[in-house]
Amino acid sequence: MKISVLGTGMVGETIASKLVELGHEVKMGSRSANNEKATAWVKKAGARASQGTFADSAAFGEILFNCTLGSGSIEALEAAGKQNLKGKILLDLSNPLDFSKGMPPTLFVSNSDSLGEQIQRAFPELKVVKTLNTVSANVMVDPARIPGEHSVFVSGNDAEAKNRVKQLLTEWFGWKQIIDMGDITTSRGTEAYLLLWIRLWGALGTPDFNVHLVKKG
Amino acid sequence: MKISVLGTGMVGETIASKLVELGHEVKMGSRSANNEKATAWVKKAGARASQGTFADSAAFGEILFNCTLGSGSIEALEAAGKQNLKGKILLDLSNPLDFSKGMPPTLFVSNSDSLGEQIQRAFPELKVVKTLNTVSANVMVDPARIPGEHSVFVSGNDAEAKNRVKQLLTEWFGWKQIIDMGDITTSRGTEAYLLLWIRLWGALGTPDFNVHLVKKG
Repeated sequence: MKISVLGTGMVGETIASKLVELGHEVKMGSRSANNEKATAWVKKAGARASQGTFADSAAFGEILFNCTLGSGSIEALEAAGKQNLKGKILLDLSNPLDFSKGMPPTLFVSNSDSLGEQIQRAFPELKVVKTLNTVSANVMVDPARIPGEHSVFVSGNDAEAKNRVKQLLTEWFGWKQIIDMGDITTSRGTEAYLLLWIRLWGALGTPDFNVHLVKKG
Repeated sequence: MKISVLGTGMVGETIASKLVELGHEVKMGSRSANNEKATAWVKKAGARASQGTFADSAAFGEILFNCTLGSGSIEALEAAGKQNLKGKILLDLSNPLDFSKGMPPTLFVSNSDSLGEQIQRAFPELKVVKTLNTVSANVMVDPARIPGEHSVFVSGNDAEAKNRVKQLLTEWFGWKQIIDMGDITTSRGTEAYLLLWIRLWGALGTPDFNVHLVKKG
């Protein structure tokens, strides 16, 4: 499949590398066509890897991953261009983290709104599925690195898109317990969880953790 | 032990009943000395159960449970009276839920502050330990009702108080995996988790669930 990965940070590189490894063609998108990190990644990742602007990447991909920083996501998608987004599924992996007020970060949108919703409102032509934002990059593509069962969430307005994403999370990365939270407003829950996640990272001393949802009966 | 349970709602009644069952003397506290729900509870719970004002209850207890609604917690503790709180451990089970804007609720404090911190700031004479606020009342006192391992958190500034609470959570209710999050500011994490919790309740159709923290190695 041809896949667009928007963002050149650790999440973007981890997702893009895994997808190339799985045999997909991946175009990493960034602000400029000759981004240094994207260039280095293409060199390392080989023939199925390419790079370009956000617009190049979005035009290329049949399916899109938003791996940009939350604070730059709307701008990146605007640069990608509405004509390149139309009708496509966007896996939104971003979090609205605000590092400007020191550590640990706060959220620049939360409680009565979410970044997932902001993106869906700004780009109604996209089928936004918020997912994977509750685990570290390495865990996203390799849940088996953590022993035992654990969970990931999906939020989105389009049932078919969510089902497709659930299928891909299992097929590509090996996710087993995928909780369908409901529509995109449920991103408020999984994004707010980051306020717990960053403190668990501190308490446990590693980002290699996750939660397993267990219920009665 | 003599225990103060502040609040007559489902959480207060569940905690108070369990503690009486374990052989403790429990005084349930509320705004008035003849609160209807507290009266009914005392009648049902038997000889070790009693009730009174917030001040009566706090004066009675060697250890305190805050089971009031988050929106009324500061007021309840003010009514309890500083002289009755001095040096005591308060297990803060409350959440800053705001139901005034419809369902699902939002949080009236979050992100850069928390109710746990507000309480600790307002009552420096208390040793506030935020805990159990991430599970439903029935799960608080009976984690075994959910199969398998799952986790509960403690946040607080006083290490000795946290250790005492961890011991009590295990001894009284059977909690096994208790995660020490750090100081009281980490309440921001466990309170924000409520925004996920209320949506999980919706998605799963039951409050009888919890998360198990799993990590690598």
